[in-house]
Order: sequence, then C-alpha cells, then structure tokens
Amino acid sequence: MRPIVALLTDFGSRDHYAGAVKGAVLAACSEAQIVDITHEVKPQDIFEGAFALAASYRAFPAGAVFMVVVDPGVGTARRGLAVEAGGYRFVGPDNGLLTLVLQDHAGAALREITNPALCRREVSKTFHARDIFGPVAGHLAGGAPFDLVGPEARDPLMLPFPRARRELSGEWTAQVVHQDRFGNLTTSLNLADFQQILTQVNGDLRSIVGIAAGIVVPVVQTYSDVLEGEACALLGSSDRLEIGVNRGNAAALLGLGMGAPVRIRPARVVL
Amino acid sequence: MRPIVALLTDFGSRDHYAGAVKGAVLAACSEAQIVDITHEVKPQDIFEGAFALAASYRAFPAGAVFMVVVDPGVGTARRGLAVEAGGYRFVGPDNGLLTLVLQDHAGAALREITNPALCRREVSKTFHARDIFGPVAGHLAGGAPFDLVGPEARDPLMLPFPRARRELSGEWTAQVVHQDRFGNLTTSLNLADFQQILTQVNGDLRSIVGIAAGIVVPVVQTYSDVLEGEACALLGSSDRLEIGVNRGNAAALLGLGMGAPVRIRPARVVL
Amino acid sequence: MRPIVALLTDFGSRDHYAGAVKGAVLAACSEAQIVDITHEVKPQDIFEGAFALAASYRAFPAGAVFMVVVDPGVGTARRGLAVEAGGYRFVGPDNGLLTLVLQDHAGAALREITNPALCRREVSKTFHARDIFGPVAGHLAGGAPFDLVGPEARDPLMLPFPRARRELSGEWTAQVVHQDRFGNLTTSLNLADFQQILTQVNGDLRSIVGIAAGIVVPVVQTYSDVLEGEACALLGSSDRLEIGVNRGNAAALLGLGMGAPVRIRPARVVL
Repeated sequence: MRPIVALLTDFGSRDHYAGAVKGAVLAACSEAQIVDITHEVKPQDIFEGAFALAASYRAFPAGAVFMVVVDPGVGTARRGLAVEAGGYRFVGPDNGLLTLVLQDHAGAALREITNPALCRREVSKTFHARDIFGPVAGHLAGGAPFDLVGPEARDPLMLPFPRARRELSGEWTAQVVHQDRFGNLTTSLNLADFQQILTQVNGDLRSIVGIAAGIVVPVVQTYSDVLEGEACALLGSSDRLEIGVNRGNAAALLGLGMGAPVRIRPARVVL
Repeated sequence: MRPIVALLTDFGSRDHYAGAVKGAVLAACSEAQIVDITHEVKPQDIFEGAFALAASYRAFPAGAVFMVVVDPGVGTARRGLAVEAGGYRFVGPDNGLLTLVLQDHAGAALREITNPALCRREVSKTFHARDIFGPVAGHLAGGAPFDLVGPEARDPLMLPFPRARRELSGEWTAQVVHQDRFGNLTTSLNLADFQQILTQVNGDLRSIVGIAAGIVVPVVQTYSDVLEGEACALLGSSDRLEIGVNRGNAAALLGLGMGAPVRIRPARVVL
Repeated sequence: MRPIVALLTDFGSRDHYAGAVKGAVLAACSEAQIVDITHEVKPQDIFEGAFALAASYRAFPAGAVFMVVVDPGVGTARRGLAVEAGGYRFVGPDNGLLTLVLQDHAGAALREITNPALCRREVSKTFHARDIFGPVAGHLAGGAPFDLVGPEARDPLMLPFPRARRELSGEWTAQVVHQDRFGNLTTSLNLADFQQILTQVNGDLRSIVGIAAGIVVPVVQTYSDVLEGEACALLGSSDRLEIGVNRGNAAALLGLGMGAPVRIRPARVVL
C-alpha cells in the first residue's frame, strides 16, 4: 500500500504553515500521499480538533498515519506523542488532542517522541509540526518501526470531553459539541448511549423524542423523514446524535450553538 | 497512469467531512491521487456545483474520476449515478449536478449505483459521499469495470440552466451565473453562442460591445486590452463571456452580482 | 523520487481555478504528487505571495517544483519564467513573485518560458496557470530537461521588499510584513540581521528588546518564555523576527497590523 499521511491542524489555509508541514512530510517520505482533513480548526481549540479527528479517522484504510496539531503549548515541556491504535498511527502534542482516539482503543501503544533522527535537522521552538510531528509522521508512513520513535509513554493527557448522562427519570441530557457548515448540531450523545436508549424503548425510534431549545423534535433515520424546513434528531454520520433540519439550517432555525443543552426522552416519560 | 479522483463538494474545508470522504476513497483505492477541486460550493447550491465542474473537468487527463456531491436530498429516493463521458467518469447524486457535463456529451453512458460491493460496508442515511460516492469513485479509479456499478440508467435529472438568447434585433441577452474571487462576472453566454456572434460580425471583435448595468464595455481578448481600472467583456477561460476590470473588481465597480442581466450587441445595431 | 508539484496562488479555494490547474499539472505528469501550499494569497498581492513562498519552500525535499501564480498582468507582455535554484524549480510570471527566492540563490538559473510543447494545446489569454505554468511545472517534475523550457533569461523583475535597517544609534528599525491567523506579526528583520544584532550584544538575547506600538517586549526563544497573555519578540519559524503573545493574539493585543513599525534595541542603548 502506498503510504498515507493525513493532516489535521489549526494552521488555516491562508498562511504558509500547512504547506511547510507538507514539505517536511515529503522530505521524510517522498512517496507519501498527503491528505488534508482540515486546517481550519478554530485556532488553539483542542476540543474541536479532537472531535474532527474522532469523526473522520475510521474512514481511512488501516496503515494511515495522522498528524494532528493544535498546539498552543508549543515550545513548552509538553511531550510529543506517537500512538498506534486500531491499525492507525497518530502523531501530535500530548495535550488532549488524542483523548477520543485513546478512549476508542484500550490497547493503544504510546511512545514519546525523542529520537532526533526522525525529526528535521534543525528543530525550532515554535513550529514542531514542521520540525518534529510532520517528519515523524512521514518516517512512520514510510516504514520506520514504531519503537524507533522513542521510549514507551504513559499517562497521556486526557481532556474531560462532555458526555451525555442518563438521569434518574430515564431522560438523557447532552449538549451540542459541534456545529457544522450546514447548521447541523452534533451532540455529546454517542453511539453507545444511543444504543442504550434504543434498548430502553425496545428498538422503536418513534418512542423517543429530542428536545432542543424547548422544542420537541422527532428522532428519525434521515433528514427527509420530516418535511422540508422541519427539525429532527438522528444518529449522524459521526455516530453521535445530531439535530438537523430537512434542507435547512438547524442552528439558525433553533437559535442554538456550541454548548446548548439537548435532551432525549423515551416515550414512557409522559410528554 | 496513476488513478486520479477529483473531489467537488459543498462540505466546506472546516468540518471533517471532506477528510472522511478522502479516507473512504483511499480505503477503496489506496493508490489514488486525490485532488481537491473545491469543497466551498455554497451549501446545497447545485447550480454553483455544476458550473464549477463544467469549468474545470476538461483540464484533467482522460481517465480521471470526479466525485461530485452537493446533495440536499441525501437519504431520499434520489438515485446515485455513475457517468462515463469524454474519457472521464463522474460519480454523484442524480439531482442535476451533472447537467452541464451531460449536455457536453451526447453519447454519455449512465449507470445507477446499486452494487453494495463497491460501497462502504455500512451505509449511513446522511453521508453518501463517504459511504457510496467516494468508495465507488475509488473503485472505478482503481480499475473496477464501469458496468459493475449497477444497471443502465435513463433520464437523469437535468436542471434548467440559464442560457443566453438571441433576440430578434440581433442583440443577445444573458445573465451573470458566477462571480469569482477577483470580482469577474461569468455569464450564461457560452462558446457556441460567442462563435455565432462572431459570425454575425465577420469575426471582428471590435464590432461588438457588452452592456452591463447600463454601461457599454468593449469586447476584448484579455483584461489588459483596456486601461487599468476599466471594464471589459471577454471570452473567459471557462469558455463563457465574462465581465472583468483590468487589475480591478468588476462586481464592485459595476455593482453587479449573480443573476444580473448582460447584453451583447453587434455593431450593426445602432448604439 | 516521486515528482512533487507544490502550488501557491491567489485563486482562492471556492472557485474552480485551483482545481483546473491541478488537472493541467496531472495532464502533463500524471505521476505528480500535487501539494497545496495556499491558494488564499490576497488577490493580486505579489508581496504576500512572495513571502509565503520564501517561508515554506525550504521545507520541501530537493527536486520539488513550485508553481507560483499571483498574476495581475496575465495576458500582457510580462514574461513567464522557470528558475532552478537550491535544488528546486520554480515556475511563474516574471513580476517579482520570485524576488526573495532569487535573493537567496546567487547562482540561480533562469529560463523564459517559450516552448509551446510544454504548454497546453490551446493557451488562453487569461489563465496562464492552467495553460502554461501548470503544464510546464508538471513536465519539469516529470523529467523534462530544464533547458527545454526556453532561452536563458536575464534581469528578472525584482521588487523592493522592505528590509530592516540598522540606525546610527545601533537600534534596528523594521516593519510588519505578515500577520498570521494566530495574530503573530512577522517583520522585515531577517536571520542575517538577527545574527548581526546578536553579535552586537555578545549573543545574549536578554540584552535586546523589541518595541512595537510603543510597548517594550523581551526578545525570547519561544512564546512560553513569557507569561500567558504577555507579548514577546522572537526569531520565528520563517527565520524572521516576529511579535507574538503567549497563547494570545499579538495583532489584537497591540493593535498592530501590516506595515506597523517595530524596533529592536540592544541593551547598551539606555532604555
């Protein structure tokens, strides 16, 4: 298989940073296919970067290497990490960016990046994506053994991502964790939560409703299960509950954004 | 030749969607060279997507596969199509996105996408670019026979794109169908129309003028045929008449945008 | 090594232009790995394009070809150039875009692009990136001899980029030449200048200060050498002095932008 290095950063697409990183990856592995996931993560927003990674990495073939950099602490003592999990490799700062990936894979292997032979000859104090993470990702994609990166690492920084919660009443409370370009609102309620809810109602989607901004919306399979312009809730493509509007913009229609509370109520709760 | 998969979507470059699609293409064909045409088509604007495709695909070498997704109807009964035309393959929803390509190629072959073996193992109801169109594009680029996609398809949805019209007076009326980043205004008057106009005036460009926002502008070969800051009309690089300003912004100068009327008047019409 | 063609333009990522250029590169060399540096250079801003190129090209492996197009004079008599320097090749209009690269490499070889065999069959007057520069870049990446491009060229257009200046007092004056997405402000004071300043103070960073917007900031090695929210000056990753704020936005905090004056004062000047 041809080596693949996928990039996810907050560098933006206007400045030269993403371009320099690609050069550095290719300098380490000229055969690599470089893939942009996004460079438009909100500057220094580690949560947004972690969500974007979690929502996309499983679509890639095994063997892919992900260089993930949202790095407000560049130049401090924070470690650089390489992680092997689920057939993939991940390279980036040890600042919580990989929290969701690590939660997905109990058996993940971690290494601290210490081997200068895998880095750029001169390492700056302000651009580790170009000087450390990009080159390490390129070398790993090109076949460098994972152990070569550096010593085993423990206790990666795990950030407290919002989780949905089942209340005593049987109702679930969640919050909006991402708003996409179309105005769809992704929540903290994940696939495992959703399956638990389905069990509560014997698998009958029509027995649950979502409540966002005080409005009750049906839980459906796809946007077009409601009329044009109507809101609904569904298990979205990133395996999280999301609020959407058929051919419309849920964030605008409902006046909701990041952090907004969303509830899921099984039908046996009286409406 | 190395397989090429070119992507054109309205997913934006901030969210993870385009990245997930790339992963899915590579999961189907890890050798593919993935090329971003644009992911910044206005959300759900099928016309804009169709114009961007029509203006760019011919620059690619034969054999390229285009995955084209602007898909407000995802999850409905709308079909998925694969098209073979002009040495290229196109994959996307049957919603009019391919209208201009199909108009270019009378002998195009169409297939409805029905073969699950070419799709992702699990197909969501909301993200067919990742689960159907991307994988099909990857497999086609990697050598899968076109017939394998599914049964022959007829009657693809064709959208009524604005066309320029020759009036009884000999004058042509058109409208602005695209405004680019530089403020150039592309119109609905295409190459065939333009050649017909040239015939009307015996090939003499100087015998025609464009009229936009009530202002008469010369028809020239390139922007610099007029003085800096002056407006002109010319046959643009996408083989359509466009209004531009030498080293300036025509949209701003003339106060024109999408849908604005533009006329072309041969010289024998008295000015 | 696999051929690499890196693209740097002001075409934006919304329109189809960058996509068409990629198609044209691949039509000339289907094996090329295409790399986007940026397409978001401010429209027609040659200075910004030149800075972005100078700040990124050295990260690439030798052999890479750069197609660099910010070209307000397309269609005029301005020449097209190919340059061989430092193991790289550069292709673009002769309008000053390559000034900083040429200043880096005294022994650069220059050719005027005149060979139609390396261009697209039909060459438009308004889109030379697709019809000339992209195809030439592809052919060079694919192995076409550099001499084939056209005759030797002399006297490329060199633009007067702002330079830092050492005043009689020993103080240096510079100006902001780039503001990035994070609000960091890159100045015209380059590596050679900085090394000269270090010599003035016997290599002791703590003996110099930066002054921007009337505020004295310490010169440090990395952002985190100052407290969170505090401003500092440092030799940035693009080998120029830059003003930044630890986990903050210097442009916003200091109210500074493009062209703003910045001074560097060795300690022996009384503060």
